[in-house]
Amino acid sequence: MIETKNIAARRETKTLQVASSISKMKEIAESLRRQNLTIGFVPTMGCLHGGHLRLIKKSLEFCDRTVVSIFVNPTQFGRDEDLDSYPRQLEDDIEKLEATAADILFHPGAEEMYPQNYKTHVQVQDISEYLCGKNRDGFFIGVATVVLKLFNIVRPHRAFFGEKDWQQLAVIEAMVEDLNLDVAVVRVPLVREPDGLAMSSRNRYLSPQQRQTALSLSRSLREARDNIRRGTTSAKVISDAIQRCLLEKEGCEIDYIAICDPESFRAKEQIRGRTLIAIAAKVGVARLIDNCIVEENECSE
Amino acid sequence: MIETKNIAARRETKTLQVASSISKMKEIAESLRRQNLTIGFVPTMGCLHGGHLRLIKKSLEFCDRTVVSIFVNPTQFGRDEDLDSYPRQLEDDIEKLEATAADILFHPGAEEMYPQNYKTHVQVQDISEYLCGKNRDGFFIGVATVVLKLFNIVRPHRAFFGEKDWQQLAVIEAMVEDLNLDVAVVRVPLVREPDGLAMSSRNRYLSPQQRQTALSLSRSLREARDNIRRGTTSAKVISDAIQRCLLEKEGCEIDYIAICDPESFRAKEQIRGRTLIAIAAKVGVARLIDNCIVEENECSE
Repeated sequence: MIETKNIAARRETKTLQVASSISKMKEIAESLRRQNLTIGFVPTMGCLHGGHLRLIKKSLEFCDRTVVSIFVNPTQFGRDEDLDSYPRQLEDDIEKLEATAADILFHPGAEEMYPQNYKTHVQVQDISEYLCGKNRDGFFIGVATVVLKLFNIVRPHRAFFGEKDWQQLAVIEAMVEDLNLDVAVVRVPLVREPDGLAMSSRNRYLSPQQRQTALSLSRSLREARDNIRRGTTSAKVISDAIQRCLLEKEGCEIDYIAICDPESFRAKEQIRGRTLIAIAAKVGVARLIDNCIVEENECSE
Repeated sequence: MIETKNIAARRETKTLQVASSISKMKEIAESLRRQNLTIGFVPTMGCLHGGHLRLIKKSLEFCDRTVVSIFVNPTQFGRDEDLDSYPRQLEDDIEKLEATAADILFHPGAEEMYPQNYKTHVQVQDISEYLCGKNRDGFFIGVATVVLKLFNIVRPHRAFFGEKDWQQLAVIEAMVEDLNLDVAVVRVPLVREPDGLAMSSRNRYLSPQQRQTALSLSRSLREARDNIRRGTTSAKVISDAIQRCLLEKEGCEIDYIAICDPESFRAKEQIRGRTLIAIAAKVGVARLIDNCIVEENECSE
């Protein structure tokens, strides 16, 4: 059932179908399933950028129909975080979706997704407790719960997630396996701006000066990779160098620098075998993350 | 698609299909779905009794195919509870299932349902915190999680649960609604032995003498109903009378007597409108529960 589609040809003839209620989306999913069409799914919080478009392209390539959801999920924001100011620009997003050949936009309201009497939460233990889970209370409960709800509504055969959110991917993969879901989770590599900054909807919070500071995240990872390539194996040495790089320019508040196993997220003292280097830092109001995978004496992003 | 089946005729021609692995069960479910057959599901922990058989009968009546699962779910037993001694009698159960016209038995192993690296749990907040959730730490997390897993594997159109586990039913209904699952949860009334004891796999723990003591649960509920019919509206008066009845014979250790709203489980001081009276008590090693629904000046079980 996997075959590469002629995306350009589809773009000519298609219009974007919009489902703004759960029942409408379920109806569409049921109809696609009945026609034996494979459903690809790209869940987003909107404010679409090149990273999202890469996910959509992958889905178009591998699936008969592609559903993109736009839902700024309130339950994955902490109390002091940017839920209210998180960028929303539905019309602009719809234009971008129409320019791709995405088939269906699902954008439910928060009241329908979380009605007043809402009670159910999904927790993926252990891996949720490291890195982004450590300082963001309930973050991965919010992520796992909304993704499960979206899976149940959209009923995708394949769901596409970016490796920028490496830990989120691990949480979702564990949930899918543990709960016996029939969804193939597809990993898509992180996409960078030409200057190296990892693409993120939150990049638009950055002033030109803050953007210069923000570049230290990707630069510190490049340097770490180079150092490991040159033979450094001590995680402490690498971590200290990343820290120096991040603090070189003013205005970068480090949340964490993690050098760890890419699956269990347990810290490593020595960089042996496949290793994840992950950073989270605040530049102005923008919380930014970036990561790369390195191997001893060899790296790949 | 709902039509009453001729169960007797089906019994003649059918053999019970047994799936003891998740992949086998998923294959069967996929095949039934492809044939547009409706799947009815009765999840059990085995040691089948008349209450289970009533659920199966209901499923046979309303669905094209009926799946019964037998899985003694380790995650819903507390540390000091009877997981190891919980009665298991698969051969006997299979005979009983063959005597009904159930189509498929799913009995997975605990290692396959909860492999070593298992991490994901589902919590239904609020209603899980009352009654049976109060003194049984993690009980409803175990129930909700396994039921969600079973739903994802068996993919039923309808799932049948007994009202003996009234609170469990409320937890599952909330989960199904919150997680946008496409399963109709069907409530089936509690079934009693001729002497009034609510049917339970744990009844076999009772010695003849303990069974006499255990009968005070159903008797106390009957008396409560009579008192309410005669005009008593004070929950305290009713609760005190139930307590006296339970403690009349030796060997009954009360866990709780709850007089509450049947949906929110919040305690009522006055019995007005639809009210749940629920009891849990230990007689010997058997933890027993029973309940009834009453209305002001009118009762139904």
